[in-house]
Amino acid sequence: MNAPIDFYFEFASPYGYLASLKIDTIAAAYDREVVWRPIMLGAAFKASGSIPNVKAPLRAPYFFRDVPRSARLMGAPLVMPASLPMNSLTASRAYWWLSASDLDIAHGFAQAIFHAHWGLGRDMSTVEQVLEVAAEFGVGAEELRAAVADPVIKERLKRETDMAIEAGVFGSPFIVVDGEPFWGADRLDQVERWLATGGW
Amino acid sequence: MNAPIDFYFEFASPYGYLASLKIDTIAAAYDREVVWRPIMLGAAFKASGSIPNVKAPLRAPYFFRDVPRSARLMGAPLVMPASLPMNSLTASRAYWWLSASDLDIAHGFAQAIFHAHWGLGRDMSTVEQVLEVAAEFGVGAEELRAAVADPVIKERLKRETDMAIEAGVFGSPFIVVDGEPFWGADRLDQVERWLATGGW
Repeated sequence: MNAPIDFYFEFASPYGYLASLKIDTIAAAYDREVVWRPIMLGAAFKASGSIPNVKAPLRAPYFFRDVPRSARLMGAPLVMPASLPMNSLTASRAYWWLSASDLDIAHGFAQAIFHAHWGLGRDMSTVEQVLEVAAEFGVGAEELRAAVADPVIKERLKRETDMAIEAGVFGSPFIVVDGEPFWGADRLDQVERWLATGGW
Repeated sequence: MNAPIDFYFEFASPYGYLASLKIDTIAAAYDREVVWRPIMLGAAFKASGSIPNVKAPLRAPYFFRDVPRSARLMGAPLVMPASLPMNSLTASRAYWWLSASDLDIAHGFAQAIFHAHWGLGRDMSTVEQVLEVAAEFGVGAEELRAAVADPVIKERLKRETDMAIEAGVFGSPFIVVDGEPFWGADRLDQVERWLATGGW
C-alpha cells in the first residue's frame, strides 16, 4: 500500500462536498487510502487574506451559479441550504471525536453530513441537526453533546486546522499526494493523473 | 455564425495566458468567434475583496507550484518572470488602441505579449518592452507612445474594465458564452461542453 492521500476540506464548502463524492474512488484505483481531514476554513482564510465566496461581491453570484452547474455536470444531488455559510464547528468536532475510536464511522458520518447539508439542503449548523445525522450511526445524543463541548476535542480541531495551515492549506478541497498540493474540486483530474504517473 | 464568446483576461494572469492558448481553437470548433477583452483585474479585485495570488500568504507558494505544473500538463511554454505581478497598463491600453483599427493585429499583439511575458519570462511592464513586441506588428514606437498616453485610450481601458465588472467579472480568465459565466482556465472543459450541448 502506498502512502495515504490527505483530503483537507471544510464541511461548509460545496466544492469540498463535490470532491468528497469522488476522492475515495480515485484513490482506490491507485491502491491509496484517503485521510479525511475536516478543518475550520475561516482560520485559513484569515491567514491568506481571503473571504468566503458567499460574502464576496461578484464572487457570490458566480458561486450560486457555478456550484449547481458543477453538481449537475457530475450528476451529484444538490440543494442549496437556505442559510449560508454553514457553521461547521459541531460537525467538525464530532468528526475528530469519532475518528479517535472508529475511522469507518467517522468517514460515514462525514459523508452523511455532506449529503444532508449539500445533497438535501438541510442546514447542519446546529448541534441538534448533527445529532440527528450521528444517530444513524448509533451515536448517542448525550455522548455526542458532551464530546463536542469537551476542551480536548475543541483543541483537537484547532490543532488539525493549525497543522493544515502549516501544511499550506488555504481552500477546500485541498488534496496532498506525496507532498504535491492540489486545490479545488476542479483539480481532481490532475490528482488522478498524478497518481497514475507519479508526476509530470 | 453564432454569437461571439467574451474572453476577459488580465495580461498579468498566467491562467489568462494558459486559457489564451486554447480559447480560439475551442470556439472555432463550434463556429464561434472570440472577443478578447483585456482588463485591469486590480479594479475587479477591489470590487470583490480579493488580493493577487502572488501577494497572498499561503496562496502565493501554491501559485508558484500550480502555474508551472498546469503549463507542463498543457505542454505550454512557461518561464516565470523575475518580478511579479506584471503592470499591464501599457499592454492593455495598447491592445484597445490597436483593436480600434485592426482586430487581427490587436489579437496577434495580445498573443505576443502573453508569449513574451509568460512563455519567455520577459517582463512586459514597461512601455519600452511593449514597444519591442508591438514593433513585430509594424507598429511605430512614437505612435504607440502617444496612444498609451492619450486620455481617450486611458478612458477606453477604464470603461472596458468597468463594463467587465458590471458583467460580473472578478477573475482571469473569465469567459462568457451566451450569458453563461465561466471563471478559470480549469473551466475550459465546461466551456467546450457548454458550446457542444447548449448547457446542462
